[in-house]
Amino acid sequence: MSKLRFIISMSLDGYVAGPQQSVENPLGIGGERLHSWAFELAAWRAPHGLTGGVVNESSAVVERRLTNIGATVMGRNMFGGHPGAWQAEKPWNGWWGTEPPFHHPVFVLTHHAREPLRLKGTTFTFVTDGIESALDQAQRAANGKDVALAGGASAAQQYLDAGLLDEMDLSVAPILLGGGERLFDNVGDDLHGLSLVDVVGAPGVAHLRFVR
Amino acid sequence: MSKLRFIISMSLDGYVAGPQQSVENPLGIGGERLHSWAFELAAWRAPHGLTGGVVNESSAVVERRLTNIGATVMGRNMFGGHPGAWQAEKPWNGWWGTEPPFHHPVFVLTHHAREPLRLKGTTFTFVTDGIESALDQAQRAANGKDVALAGGASAAQQYLDAGLLDEMDLSVAPILLGGGERLFDNVGDDLHGLSLVDVVGAPGVAHLRFVR
Repeated sequence: MSKLRFIISMSLDGYVAGPQQSVENPLGIGGERLHSWAFELAAWRAPHGLTGGVVNESSAVVERRLTNIGATVMGRNMFGGHPGAWQAEKPWNGWWGTEPPFHHPVFVLTHHAREPLRLKGTTFTFVTDGIESALDQAQRAANGKDVALAGGASAAQQYLDAGLLDEMDLSVAPILLGGGERLFDNVGDDLHGLSLVDVVGAPGVAHLRFVR
Repeated sequence: MSKLRFIISMSLDGYVAGPQQSVENPLGIGGERLHSWAFELAAWRAPHGLTGGVVNESSAVVERRLTNIGATVMGRNMFGGHPGAWQAEKPWNGWWGTEPPFHHPVFVLTHHAREPLRLKGTTFTFVTDGIESALDQAQRAANGKDVALAGGASAAQQYLDAGLLDEMDLSVAPILLGGGERLFDNVGDDLHGLSLVDVVGAPGVAHLRFVR
């Protein structure tokens, strides 16, 4: 069965993006520090078209997370750019340049209809009829593989609240952001069966893996 | 040098106590789930006067945390009972019965003066002139050993903000509480030099150790 696997980095104070997110600063003030542990990894750099990098205890975690993913779902805020309707001329095309790192179909949750965006190796499909439709489309596109939920917080909260997350890979960055977008706001006290099954310590990060 | 070592359990959504704390329910709704991982340990049960219990990956963590502690500092809310002035007759004497588990001097931060409370093995001294005075008194009482900061959130925030924490042992419980007392509120984005140095995974918990 195709699983929905949520993968995210969070600060000690619970934020997945810092304060004052903008087009110029999509992760908010300090938000890039959430991912410092990843940027130096060869296992992260290769799929992003970068050479070099190190191997450490995070490497196997990152490799496992990238394995058997056939499609990705993300929220509009993570696809990013700006809120509201798409601009008719030169609509926002994502943060990822001409060749996004996904290399599989990506489904973007949005209230604003838009034709699919075809870039090298990745097509973004814009889904306006809800999280279950997006998951259903992604699972069919994944062709037997799993679906990654890439965030952001609002999309994650909706899938968690609906009991649709099969796995959660939470990388806790040992930093405070002091404000921004909180991952676990608005979800009450129910993890919907997700249990901690593995903990990995690595330079600058603690990886917590949950499954149900 | 006598270090100040902060030791606490926190939920995934950042709470160190659940909602609706009261005299009857000092940890708030669901708050005891923060400590489920500890209650079953022989290493936790013995100092609390209980027999039995298991040994697992948490055992060495708990034993290390209890080692070389000569005094404890805690906030009034953790000493607990009720806010405001102490009742003249039958003042609140803590949650710990006639023989508290500390077996060393404990210093309670409060705005309300009170004579020391002497119980079997533990004397509680009530400090009204601030966190630095409490730390100074505790370090002298610790007689060369370290001082434990036991919480709660408000006391921890004050010591963190003042740059006085030398170590932080954070046990992340894989649960949501959905409300309550947040550990890292009101402290901005500065860990004051505390760096992650060790991560231990154990049944039902991830232990993150910070030092500076």
